[in-house]
Amino acid sequence: MNMQTVERLHSALDNTVLQELTQLLGERVTISSASCMRHGQDESYHAPFPPDAVAYPTSNEEVAAIVKICSSHRVPMVPYGVGTSLEGNIAALQGGVCIDMGRMNRVLEVNAEDMDVRVEAGITRKQLHSHIRDTGLFFPVDPGADATIGGMTATRASGTTAVRYGTMRENVLGLTVVLADGSVVRTGTRARKSAAGYDLTRLFVGSEGTLGVITEIALRLHPVPQATTSAVCPFATLEGAVNAVMLTIQSGIPVARIELLDEVQMQGVNRYSKLNYPVQPTLFFEFHGTEAGAAEQAQMVGEIAREHGGLEFQWASKPEDRSRLWQARHDTLYAGMSLRPESRALVTDVCVPISRLAECVLETRRDIDTSGFIVPIVGHVGDGNFHLLILVDPNNAAEIERAMALNTRLVNRALGMGGTCTGEHGVGYGKIEFVEQEHGAGVAVMRTIKTAMDPLNLMNPGKVIRNIAATL
Amino acid sequence: MNMQTVERLHSALDNTVLQELTQLLGERVTISSASCMRHGQDESYHAPFPPDAVAYPTSNEEVAAIVKICSSHRVPMVPYGVGTSLEGNIAALQGGVCIDMGRMNRVLEVNAEDMDVRVEAGITRKQLHSHIRDTGLFFPVDPGADATIGGMTATRASGTTAVRYGTMRENVLGLTVVLADGSVVRTGTRARKSAAGYDLTRLFVGSEGTLGVITEIALRLHPVPQATTSAVCPFATLEGAVNAVMLTIQSGIPVARIELLDEVQMQGVNRYSKLNYPVQPTLFFEFHGTEAGAAEQAQMVGEIAREHGGLEFQWASKPEDRSRLWQARHDTLYAGMSLRPESRALVTDVCVPISRLAECVLETRRDIDTSGFIVPIVGHVGDGNFHLLILVDPNNAAEIERAMALNTRLVNRALGMGGTCTGEHGVGYGKIEFVEQEHGAGVAVMRTIKTAMDPLNLMNPGKVIRNIAATL
Repeated sequence: MNMQTVERLHSALDNTVLQELTQLLGERVTISSASCMRHGQDESYHAPFPPDAVAYPTSNEEVAAIVKICSSHRVPMVPYGVGTSLEGNIAALQGGVCIDMGRMNRVLEVNAEDMDVRVEAGITRKQLHSHIRDTGLFFPVDPGADATIGGMTATRASGTTAVRYGTMRENVLGLTVVLADGSVVRTGTRARKSAAGYDLTRLFVGSEGTLGVITEIALRLHPVPQATTSAVCPFATLEGAVNAVMLTIQSGIPVARIELLDEVQMQGVNRYSKLNYPVQPTLFFEFHGTEAGAAEQAQMVGEIAREHGGLEFQWASKPEDRSRLWQARHDTLYAGMSLRPESRALVTDVCVPISRLAECVLETRRDIDTSGFIVPIVGHVGDGNFHLLILVDPNNAAEIERAMALNTRLVNRALGMGGTCTGEHGVGYGKIEFVEQEHGAGVAVMRTIKTAMDPLNLMNPGKVIRNIAATL
Repeated sequence: MNMQTVERLHSALDNTVLQELTQLLGERVTISSASCMRHGQDESYHAPFPPDAVAYPTSNEEVAAIVKICSSHRVPMVPYGVGTSLEGNIAALQGGVCIDMGRMNRVLEVNAEDMDVRVEAGITRKQLHSHIRDTGLFFPVDPGADATIGGMTATRASGTTAVRYGTMRENVLGLTVVLADGSVVRTGTRARKSAAGYDLTRLFVGSEGTLGVITEIALRLHPVPQATTSAVCPFATLEGAVNAVMLTIQSGIPVARIELLDEVQMQGVNRYSKLNYPVQPTLFFEFHGTEAGAAEQAQMVGEIAREHGGLEFQWASKPEDRSRLWQARHDTLYAGMSLRPESRALVTDVCVPISRLAECVLETRRDIDTSGFIVPIVGHVGDGNFHLLILVDPNNAAEIERAMALNTRLVNRALGMGGTCTGEHGVGYGKIEFVEQEHGAGVAVMRTIKTAMDPLNLMNPGKVIRNIAATL
């Protein structure tokens, strides 16, 4: 999108550093400008910041060696998956070395009996799916993009199934992390739970590379349900849809997915996927269970929906119908963009207590309508999490500024309702100013931890927390 | 148990400190020896270490003021709930001030729509249960004792329902914590998930008061299931019972509870509760769901059990029968002790990957039988977590030493199988030596965090991590 000029806060890489990296990695380090440009830009609207070099390690030892070289020369490091982040999380704000984990994408262990798996950080979630396809198990966390497991861990990603299966917070069992001093630490054990010491695993999940480079992840898997049924149900009002969700959750119905697309998004879905859903606030459901269990869930939710202005359910039980249905949901970004040709989407997300969700979405819709933008709204509504796709002309600076103001108002609204400035995209540098507002005194604790663990402030500097100073 | 002589590593409290505390708290600070003795002893077999004074704050501000007074005079502080910990977690190893949270036991908010609650740390779980009885919601985490929510948070407690509902790790949404410098920090938001910054909530959960004093906890609640059914099933072999559990979990059957009592424990249960269960390795089950759902789960588990040598199911659907059944399970400590009059139980727990559980329990049983002790085994078997109650003569030092050696072998066995030295009791000072063994380089990270957050090493010193030095 390149909305701002690309500028570097530090100077380019020292020759010695490059020599040492080349000695270590041979051709697996590059300073080619195409490569650097590509690694400085994620899928967000934020200005790109290319690194000075890109390194492609293939082992923990190589990552550790890269970190040691960079540390000794005080060169910043930015871990990189596939660049699908949405808040500039991988921008090399101060240049330095991008550590592209893409060549560390092996599955290290599958423990079917314990329903866990250990992978290298660079594997994508779809690669993982293929690998475990025949185990009867699956990994549920599904952000829209085919992100790497490392990136998903680093940003505490979630997706459409978090309402039932949890986010990366709940599904990461342990990690291997290369720390700022180049030492390698393994967190967690293979036991399902532990009361033995500080929860380092959870500290690294969501730390966005600012406390170390995540190189391996042990994940919890789940049994593939005997039966899966999906359904789509339009609602008379958005409030009715949200209330139906709230009652569903409060009734303890273990829905696997419950997603809200507002009427603007439904327009986009119809246009993009050549479908003809009613242009109404719509819930997409998925039920997992035994045959009888999934059917019972569906029936209970059907009743709740009817009481809240739900119109007709469209069912999809056959795998190909389900795929089509969920593909339409997963394509919402492109579908949304189809509503305004040549536009780019300024994508943002917040999360609020579910009791405030209807109010938050409706106020946001009014704000959008006043602002004159086309903005589809999509939500992981069972968690109180929703996304705006603010469609902007990438070449119109004034418009972008107005879009960013809309985003700021959205975040303030969510924080005012006891929510968070991001439910699943992470902070990067795009939302760094809001973290202070959200956590208050907690930011000082985060800063203490960051400074203690990365005293030179070389690990993805300028992300998550502002005003970190090198202390050594 | 007073197995070792009570000795203090530091000298008693300075008079100035006591004066300042008295000025703050009036009669809510005491140096009475009975009070101090009582606050230095938990329910474990470890030697007691009484504090020099006990303070009873009633607000966050008072806790902060206590911490500031203690910090300025370099006096250690030990947060205290009701003293049901099992690894000497509340022993005042270096004396100082015990902060008894018992008078901070209010429910601050119940948000039924969002299914969460905010409480002060000193409330016990049974007090919480009474308070929310009419909301249609419940809080599932149930360690044997009626512990405080603060204590359960600090030790990352779990219990019989963790297999379905998770431990304190999954059920704490946010915290208020008084830090070592007396500042007050609030972690988390009311949103169900967030990707905004480091997960401070999870860092404090399980930190056992070594990083600050937890004063308030926001908890996730769950809907009371429509139907609840319990059952008891004896098995021909322990291996069969464990395999049945493994298959149950792998089949995705959402059992609410699945507990193993070995034949020695069943003897104790029969004797203590005047019951006549078969003296066999036995599984206690509970199923939560709709009427049809709970019945279907029970039927599926019944089939699995039969395939693995399960004998007859005894059902309990009526609330009073269920209570009796689970009371027998919860009384295992006393039931176990009834097997050897005048004995005390050296209670310990480990947790292993479930694929290794049968092997771990059977090897442990052989070790026990060689050692000549009477040791009932009880396990939260769905999580791979089990407990030994090693019945010892509290006045026989040699016997206690042999029991501790048995414990050490147990922990080594669990670690060797990829497990953890404690699934749910925490580290305290009883398991501090094993943390190093379990986490290796991770302990250095824990030490870095501890030192950064508590540079004077005054927050529950001597717990969780060894060899912390004051750095200011």
